[in-house]
Amino acid sequence: MQEYNRRQFIATASVLAVAPGTIVQSEDKNLNQLIHHVFFWLKKPGSATDRQLLIEGLKTLAGIKEVKKLLIGTAAATENRGVVDNSYDVSELMYFDNIEGQNAYQVHPIHKAFVEKCSHLWEKVVVYDMQVI
Amino acid sequence: MQEYNRRQFIATASVLAVAPGTIVQSEDKNLNQLIHHVFFWLKKPGSATDRQLLIEGLKTLAGIKEVKKLLIGTAAATENRGVVDNSYDVSELMYFDNIEGQNAYQVHPIHKAFVEKCSHLWEKVVVYDMQVI
Repeated sequence: MQEYNRRQFIATASVLAVAPGTIVQSEDKNLNQLIHHVFFWLKKPGSATDRQLLIEGLKTLAGIKEVKKLLIGTAAATENRGVVDNSYDVSELMYFDNIEGQNAYQVHPIHKAFVEKCSHLWEKVVVYDMQVI
Repeated sequence: MQEYNRRQFIATASVLAVAPGTIVQSEDKNLNQLIHHVFFWLKKPGSATDRQLLIEGLKTLAGIKEVKKLLIGTAAATENRGVVDNSYDVSELMYFDNIEGQNAYQVHPIHKAFVEKCSHLWEKVVVYDMQVI
């Protein structure tokens, strides 16, 4: 079996293994997919202006071709069950085709411009990179 | 403009505002979308068996109808830039249509069975709930 077909077969099989109607690995043709999830805590957490400035800055990152999908959000008002950290202000969730895409993103001029323009807004950043399996 | 159309218009406009080819809010018909991202640190981080048991347990959660999308992964081998926390072992990323979906998931029998069966495997859990904007 060619490499492409083998991978496609594995991905398809993993989808079929779960209940119909639910998507596991919807981007299942790419087993190298990487998810980059960043959480920002603002220096001025109560500032709607600063939050909006950060959100607008994050939107510019969609112009980087390696960023295949970008979702921006804020802490949800879910129940605080102890393990939930909803103390952050803004979050970005990005999909890359592979680790090389994420590496290219880090040094991309648009990303550098965003950091230069917006980094004074945040107090703390936490990043999680997840290799989808 | 009806509420549905107004929301669709806003979502479409936000997509058009960014570079073509990049998707922002691909699930853009739902502005209540909630992303639930969980990170697990195993009691035995080096145990491939325990990691696999946890992954298999997580796959069962796809059987919950409120879970619209489930991605499972491990820490990516991205560069350690100080802000990156790649110390976790396994991660699940879930999409819900709204906060009510996430609340229903928390008390769903399949979720409870997963916690009962697998919670002995992990030392620490961190959860982030993100309201997509």
